[in-house]
Amino acid sequence: MDYKLVVAVREDLDMSKGKMAVQVAHAAVISAMNCKRKNAKWFRNWYDEGQKKVVVRTEDVAGLHELSEEAEKLGISTATIDDAGLTELPPGTTTCLGIGPAPNSIIDQVTGKLKLW
Amino acid sequence: MDYKLVVAVREDLDMSKGKMAVQVAHAAVISAMNCKRKNAKWFRNWYDEGQKKVVVRTEDVAGLHELSEEAEKLGISTATIDDAGLTELPPGTTTCLGIGPAPNSIIDQVTGKLKLW
Repeated sequence: MDYKLVVAVREDLDMSKGKMAVQVAHAAVISAMNCKRKNAKWFRNWYDEGQKKVVVRTEDVAGLHELSEEAEKLGISTATIDDAGLTELPPGTTTCLGIGPAPNSIIDQVTGKLKLW
Repeated sequence: MDYKLVVAVREDLDMSKGKMAVQVAHAAVISAMNCKRKNAKWFRNWYDEGQKKVVVRTEDVAGLHELSEEAEKLGISTATIDDAGLTELPPGTTTCLGIGPAPNSIIDQVTGKLKLW
């Protein structure tokens, strides 16, 4: 597969399995829809080849902001997710960042060194 | 919020945090896109009001098939996710089911009694 969507998740929040899954799903849906509007070809190629998704680790919220800036510079769609804070986290906590979909060769410049969950 | 998207995940597979997050994200993106084509109004209302997502438990794959049939009878979009099986699971393992988005009053008829993750 030539395209992927990456979701970077904060390690320092220690979210439960269900909580993390919902946050990653928010990031994937919104980042994919942003890409669909901004770069329909990338979206379509990614969707049709099987929608590869990868979840990686970032230390803290500053890490997410850096990744977001780097991705935007390369023309990659992003989606920063703030939790409504009804359960585990304080309201407005930034939990994760959706990046892409984008061609592997471009997105790897931003996320290639991050560890998988 | 009047709409939600529910993802039912098999308890018997004991997936890791990262694995489960990716499977739930697959289900959310595909079920949402199916709804967008099939019932654009439900998709738009759900998207604009904040895209509520809930992750619930099912015992096994038979449970997912039952939920899928019930949802389809009520006109709710679904997405059954089979894992490519490159890491934790045998190839083709059905991991989870995306249901909706749909109005709460309709989707609760299918998923209202399931336990949260």
